[in-house]
Amino acid sequence: MDQRVSFITLAVRDLDASRRFYLDGLGRTAAVDVPGEVVMISVGERVVLSLWDEQAFEAEVGPVARGSGVPPVTLAHNVATEEAVEDVLATARAAGASAVGVPTRREWGGYTGYFADPDGFRWEVAYNPDPIGRSVLP
Amino acid sequence: MDQRVSFITLAVRDLDASRRFYLDGLGRTAAVDVPGEVVMISVGERVVLSLWDEQAFEAEVGPVARGSGVPPVTLAHNVATEEAVEDVLATARAAGASAVGVPTRREWGGYTGYFADPDGFRWEVAYNPDPIGRSVLP
Repeated sequence: MDQRVSFITLAVRDLDASRRFYLDGLGRTAAVDVPGEVVMISVGERVVLSLWDEQAFEAEVGPVARGSGVPPVTLAHNVATEEAVEDVLATARAAGASAVGVPTRREWGGYTGYFADPDGFRWEVAYNPDPIGRSVLP
Repeated sequence: MDQRVSFITLAVRDLDASRRFYLDGLGRTAAVDVPGEVVMISVGERVVLSLWDEQAFEAEVGPVARGSGVPPVTLAHNVATEEAVEDVLATARAAGASAVGVPTRREWGGYTGYFADPDGFRWEVAYNPDPIGRSVLP
């Protein structure tokens, strides 16, 4: 079993709201778009982000844990400079992201800030000067 | 803002249990391993899976939503044949995965089954003959 992630699937409550945010707001392009079911977005070499209608997700995977709080997962979009962190957060804010945080210098040497998609999934916009951070830059 | 996911970060309750499952059980290799803090595993071209201690995650991102049910996210590992789905699920079972499902022929034409990691994060092992599925194969 080689160590690959091929799809990242998020359960979304309102697929139309997700489509508006990711496609119209953030300007991403769908690779697959089936209204009422799923929107798939290529997010890397052989990696696809799938926004899947929550009812369909629950029917196949099981009931989702509810309750107040954030989902136990974040997705990071890494960039090459601290200035780019601020630019991307500004883009997210203009796209209607909620919970747009102030970028923060982290104790490990990075500079990152978060924003939330319509379901509260947190995206981290990150400048990470470590080797592992540099390894993910285009 | 180009459409990339650089890191997928999962909040894990017991990092030692996660390390045993992913590294010793599934045989994956850590790119970064800081006991008590984080284990990072390369899972694609410029994509890293980060297993982050839940307390540290919550201190930075916020309290995680609890409650019974599955996390609202799945990660898929796609393979080229239906037989490979069964092989990978058997490997996961041998590694101590819980909730190892029976692979199922899906109405959209695929053949997939799930297993759970120590925190209940679901991995889908998938044969997907559609163009989007073939696009993620190595």
